[in-house]
Amino acid sequence: MSTIDKPFNRLLLTGAGGGIGTVLRDRIKPWARVVRLADIGDLGEARPGEEIMRCDLADRDAVLAMMEGVDAVLHFGGISVEDQFVPIMNANILGLHHLYEAVHKHGVGRVVYASSSHTVGFYRTTERVDADMPLRPDGFYGLSKCFGEALSRYYYDRCGIETVCLRIGSSFPEPKNARMMTTYLAYDDLVELVRCALFTPRVGHTIAFGTSANATQWWDNGKAAHLGYVPRASSQAFAGNFPPTAERPPAGDPTTIYQGGPFVSAGPMYRD
Amino acid sequence: MSTIDKPFNRLLLTGAGGGIGTVLRDRIKPWARVVRLADIGDLGEARPGEEIMRCDLADRDAVLAMMEGVDAVLHFGGISVEDQFVPIMNANILGLHHLYEAVHKHGVGRVVYASSSHTVGFYRTTERVDADMPLRPDGFYGLSKCFGEALSRYYYDRCGIETVCLRIGSSFPEPKNARMMTTYLAYDDLVELVRCALFTPRVGHTIAFGTSANATQWWDNGKAAHLGYVPRASSQAFAGNFPPTAERPPAGDPTTIYQGGPFVSAGPMYRD
Amino acid sequence: MSTIDKPFNRLLLTGAGGGIGTVLRDRIKPWARVVRLADIGDLGEARPGEEIMRCDLADRDAVLAMMEGVDAVLHFGGISVEDQFVPIMNANILGLHHLYEAVHKHGVGRVVYASSSHTVGFYRTTERVDADMPLRPDGFYGLSKCFGEALSRYYYDRCGIETVCLRIGSSFPEPKNARMMTTYLAYDDLVELVRCALFTPRVGHTIAFGTSANATQWWDNGKAAHLGYVPRASSQAFAGNFPPTAERPPAGDPTTIYQGGPFVSAGPMYRD
Amino acid sequence: MSTIDKPFNRLLLTGAGGGIGTVLRDRIKPWARVVRLADIGDLGEARPGEEIMRCDLADRDAVLAMMEGVDAVLHFGGISVEDQFVPIMNANILGLHHLYEAVHKHGVGRVVYASSSHTVGFYRTTERVDADMPLRPDGFYGLSKCFGEALSRYYYDRCGIETVCLRIGSSFPEPKNARMMTTYLAYDDLVELVRCALFTPRVGHTIAFGTSANATQWWDNGKAAHLGYVPRASSQAFAGNFPPTAERPPAGDPTTIYQGGPFVSAGPMYRD
Amino acid sequence: MSTIDKPFNRLLLTGAGGGIGTVLRDRIKPWARVVRLADIGDLGEARPGEEIMRCDLADRDAVLAMMEGVDAVLHFGGISVEDQFVPIMNANILGLHHLYEAVHKHGVGRVVYASSSHTVGFYRTTERVDADMPLRPDGFYGLSKCFGEALSRYYYDRCGIETVCLRIGSSFPEPKNARMMTTYLAYDDLVELVRCALFTPRVGHTIAFGTSANATQWWDNGKAAHLGYVPRASSQAFAGNFPPTAERPPAGDPTTIYQGGPFVSAGPMYRD
Amino acid sequence: MSTIDKPFNRLLLTGAGGGIGTVLRDRIKPWARVVRLADIGDLGEARPGEEIMRCDLADRDAVLAMMEGVDAVLHFGGISVEDQFVPIMNANILGLHHLYEAVHKHGVGRVVYASSSHTVGFYRTTERVDADMPLRPDGFYGLSKCFGEALSRYYYDRCGIETVCLRIGSSFPEPKNARMMTTYLAYDDLVELVRCALFTPRVGHTIAFGTSANATQWWDNGKAAHLGYVPRASSQAFAGNFPPTAERPPAGDPTTIYQGGPFVSAGPMYRD
Repeated sequence: MSTIDKPFNRLLLTGAGGGIGTVLRDRIKPWARVVRLADIGDLGEARPGEEIMRCDLADRDAVLAMMEGVDAVLHFGGISVEDQFVPIMNANILGLHHLYEAVHKHGVGRVVYASSSHTVGFYRTTERVDADMPLRPDGFYGLSKCFGEALSRYYYDRCGIETVCLRIGSSFPEPKNARMMTTYLAYDDLVELVRCALFTPRVGHTIAFGTSANATQWWDNGKAAHLGYVPRASSQAFAGNFPPTAERPPAGDPTTIYQGGPFVSAGPMYRD
Repeated sequence: MSTIDKPFNRLLLTGAGGGIGTVLRDRIKPWARVVRLADIGDLGEARPGEEIMRCDLADRDAVLAMMEGVDAVLHFGGISVEDQFVPIMNANILGLHHLYEAVHKHGVGRVVYASSSHTVGFYRTTERVDADMPLRPDGFYGLSKCFGEALSRYYYDRCGIETVCLRIGSSFPEPKNARMMTTYLAYDDLVELVRCALFTPRVGHTIAFGTSANATQWWDNGKAAHLGYVPRASSQAFAGNFPPTAERPPAGDPTTIYQGGPFVSAGPMYRD
Repeated sequence: MSTIDKPFNRLLLTGAGGGIGTVLRDRIKPWARVVRLADIGDLGEARPGEEIMRCDLADRDAVLAMMEGVDAVLHFGGISVEDQFVPIMNANILGLHHLYEAVHKHGVGRVVYASSSHTVGFYRTTERVDADMPLRPDGFYGLSKCFGEALSRYYYDRCGIETVCLRIGSSFPEPKNARMMTTYLAYDDLVELVRCALFTPRVGHTIAFGTSANATQWWDNGKAAHLGYVPRASSQAFAGNFPPTAERPPAGDPTTIYQGGPFVSAGPMYRD
Repeated sequence: MSTIDKPFNRLLLTGAGGGIGTVLRDRIKPWARVVRLADIGDLGEARPGEEIMRCDLADRDAVLAMMEGVDAVLHFGGISVEDQFVPIMNANILGLHHLYEAVHKHGVGRVVYASSSHTVGFYRTTERVDADMPLRPDGFYGLSKCFGEALSRYYYDRCGIETVCLRIGSSFPEPKNARMMTTYLAYDDLVELVRCALFTPRVGHTIAFGTSANATQWWDNGKAAHLGYVPRASSQAFAGNFPPTAERPPAGDPTTIYQGGPFVSAGPMYRD
Repeated sequence: MSTIDKPFNRLLLTGAGGGIGTVLRDRIKPWARVVRLADIGDLGEARPGEEIMRCDLADRDAVLAMMEGVDAVLHFGGISVEDQFVPIMNANILGLHHLYEAVHKHGVGRVVYASSSHTVGFYRTTERVDADMPLRPDGFYGLSKCFGEALSRYYYDRCGIETVCLRIGSSFPEPKNARMMTTYLAYDDLVELVRCALFTPRVGHTIAFGTSANATQWWDNGKAAHLGYVPRASSQAFAGNFPPTAERPPAGDPTTIYQGGPFVSAGPMYRD
Repeated sequence: MSTIDKPFNRLLLTGAGGGIGTVLRDRIKPWARVVRLADIGDLGEARPGEEIMRCDLADRDAVLAMMEGVDAVLHFGGISVEDQFVPIMNANILGLHHLYEAVHKHGVGRVVYASSSHTVGFYRTTERVDADMPLRPDGFYGLSKCFGEALSRYYYDRCGIETVCLRIGSSFPEPKNARMMTTYLAYDDLVELVRCALFTPRVGHTIAFGTSANATQWWDNGKAAHLGYVPRASSQAFAGNFPPTAERPPAGDPTTIYQGGPFVSAGPMYRD
């Protein structure tokens, strides 16, 4: 595909320095003449077809500037782990407000938003969750993503700005523990999911779960079937890393009772 | 399979001259000793194992005659595009009444009825529809198929006549536009779906969607899982024909907002 | 309320000579400066505040003329009992098409449409039905009302014309048999239901069941709660007319198995 | 009931100077030996049985101090109208975080939280909403209440702190416009709802809608039936203030299409 | 009503010596020429219009004899409290099998069966349960009633014998503790519920909850709306007996977490 | 895997002499150092890694002894065909009570319980059933399995003992009749399903259907998706054994109307 044929002129990727951002940085180039990469940290030198912008999402003016000339946004920026409330609020709540204000002001029509399965982390590992079920965040991080889903819904209902919220499981080269056998999202599937979210002609406001075709399933993606996302990988390829065991976690262990795993008790809540 | 082993003695295919009828004409021969082909237009010469009958469905006596000696019906006749109300009423409403009167009089036990996804064409392309959700026809054609589903339900509840209503998407050699990437039903899958509808021992009154195993899915076929229909083809084979694009349809364009696509505004309704 | 204060200028009531039409004729006068009464039969002399029009719904030009200058329609015309298919089709299918064509051409914004509980008469008397459940017509009459609900839905989705479909039970001075203890709609409640359907600011396309506050309930009206209809009467006032009995109907008697009662077997279907 | 018999020792009412706070101030006295009243504004002199504290919810230390010695909280503080994002965030998001941190630190077991029907204001006036359906906020105010429902859910799942979220409609002496005929919550019913939320032995995390027994219903309170709230008043007492009218709002008018009414377009979003 | 007019010839009431049986004994006389009373204990002398039979349900022949000449059965016999497994099995499982064998053999068409809300006692007091939700028995007694509901369903599906399973809450002269404010079934309402279950022309297999119109509701009786049961009494009449309290049960106390109350931990399970 | 690495120390398999037990006997060896095999009949000599115990489930002491030293139970014992009520009660009701008493006493944490699709055999072959839908047993055998599902639920809710109830279809070397084309569970898939049920870290109380990936599906296994069971085989491999036929079963034939097939009329119920 020649440069001239690339579907977008300028695509913005926020959080480009993060784990998923780094993966996407290389894989999304065929989709745009220019990929604008943004992060709160240093992203190094721009490579061909890239623009680089350093941006703190809590800085309204910086966010407005970052959005200029952008056709569509892949928003993977902000804080993506459990943390104290105030930094999460600044990056993921105030920052997201800034982002959508800028999207609205610059007439951007589509956002792919990195939500999280931690919006529903307090469902049990024996339950199956779909995109319309009530929220059950498992920490301040998950809570900020609940906010993001509601805010993006509002911008769709009020202004027609389309968003796909991706409730990503665990996107790593391979599952790092037994829980990730269920939540694993291979990089190839991640890229395919983002591609579907970006190119499906109409998405309205869609919430989609992001996992590969793993054997164990906690999430029913039926409400996002119009995206056409079909995962190809499966965590079963790594089943040998987690041999069957008769040892059961203690009956009251929240990290195995709830889908959120360690997040449900990793938070800073009990600190004084 | 020798002639003697064919499951049916005489199978009636209406609309045998139409697009789908022509495909079925050759493919259903192994199912019956005689295939009776009917159409409002000229079907040419009967080939071995065929009987040909010209029949206007609005003509009650002709329909009664057409049904004589028939074991089961594949009803693909009538008008299958958007049109003025009166011709659609004559062919698809009055005509269908004639057909079921004849089916009842001649003791035929099973009808495979070509309904249409245009019975639900006014659902959005971001929604997933199943067979029990309220009807949302997108034109007079779709409306006539809503009538057909209700009429066949009545004949089942009242007389025990079994019908499978096939809400066929787009059955062509290949998808002709981006919308058909979702609605595509390959010919092999079409034949398999008709086969399942005809040979499943008990179907009661079943409504099934007819698409191939395309990546994008608007319709949930779970309520027809007892038919055993498993599509094998996928529109993904033709994905290269519809390259990704950043161009969005205008916000208010009904042909991309609604599943019915061009049907939702192609009708004759606004003519004087 | 002085004439000048009446909410509507001209309200059309079709089927004004029928049982329900006769009740409404007197009760709706406060709602409009002029009530236009239409019927296929003779309605006698117009009284003050009335206009009278004889109209066969199957006559397109007559229906167009009837609609001129009308602000809103109460459509109680057509055939309201089980009958042969062709007369029902002409009055209730073709006739309804004519009505909505005229409504559309004359820019009328709201129709209150007499649908029927016979659209769902083949549900069992032990089931509870709501407005979104699949249709189960119990005869050609019920089938024509299924068509009417789908057609009015189409005119709403395509043109924004609002309709309230009233699935009226049994509106008589009092219940005439044990079944009507469940389906009874007192005249006062009928008028209140029509009033709600006409004056609720926005109704979109609403399907509402019409019964009084009877003890036994087959229908869940929750999907029409935005109409604000609160029945006041109850069939319990007539409980003494139907003393308790130990006699059970025969096990296979369809008129007590199904909600439609005698309709489910009263039709002309089996005649030659 | 003598002082000694009052069920609570100290009850905290935040937002005591607001419209609803003022109503509650007098009505909740029988429930506690001491009612601690808090507000960002001046509350005047404490009356017998009252304590008064001035408190900005964005001030963490002030919130901690306010919670000392409290048995249960009625949280009606914060911003309760549409406003710019930052002040809403400070009062209703950061402020609520402070409140629950304090509740947790001081071991308070129950919060009655003034959420709002504007969490679901972008549902249509023809839809019926229950507590488990997806959120549809109609502005920044509604969005902050979505956050509050998720945060309180988290504190229940993580720490067992019980909250009843009250999605209050319009609590005024009488309905002020036609929309409030549906959303009206009479003061007596408001107090009864708060009483149920406070005294039901176990509430877990409950979301309840707050309206009187009005004829028109947009909200299904079934999921809160364990609270035992039975409204006694009805807006029908004021029906005469809003006479029936044939005038329809313009087809595209969002304030009548959506349940949120004027809120859906009253926000500051479009300002530069 | 003269004897001659009584609807039934002979009505069997089992468990006639129990709490509810004693209430029914006097109240059901108008429904039958003869009321046959049965119990495992001594019922004293038969009064006019009564027959008395001593019967152990575990004795097959005795049960067969008890059923002779009976038109309909009100089955309130068996063990109705938590107990060891074997006696419950003999009375409520084997005994119920005997009962339905006898019902079948003697051609009795209708049984009103005292099931129990303890079939679903392990739902939480913050949940609302309907008749189609999965069973959650709270002890061996509840378990035996789960069995009874399944057995009676089988006899309906297989033989057409109709049963109404009454999941009775707490039927006493008045609520005896705070939990019974929710589960209370006044005697008048009990009798009305039994009357509805017995005289509704067709009931198929119906599961109905038995409470009065109490303010707090754990159970949604919508699936039994065809019975026409409308409770008149309410536990609110006794609200003064249970004054509001700020004291919360301990967080882990199963008797307030679960609907079954003391039953959930009263069983003999932990005995050796 | 060396003996030392086997996940369990001692695994109990009841019903080891039955059809499925015999299959499992050889296939589960890698999961435990010792497999204890139990049956009411003679199991022959113990092979290496096996222990053999003869046990009548109706014998409480024998069941207690059988459970000693056991880590987990695969309960395939009891009666697995339609039979008279009393033997089924003794083996499958009283016997199951004994089993769970023993499980509780010996602190066993997990049971894999052979329930049956005959718990829902009275659903129609045109319906799709999931694990939360009401029970519809098709005989005394199915009824005993309904009891087992409720009893194991109780032991989970009360004591935290985890159970996976397997509603196994037809597990044989190949489908033996047309019905089994739908219910077929290949042995490899059976073993995989048992493996998932045994090794999934947390299962709570799960009900899973056991079939291979057959084309026709009556059962929706979504509620058990957390088990990670992915069938590999399909009855389609045997489609040639059941050629398509035009012959329909008689309209009223219960063995094709209902999912339970011959079970629905094979029972002893009508014997005297």
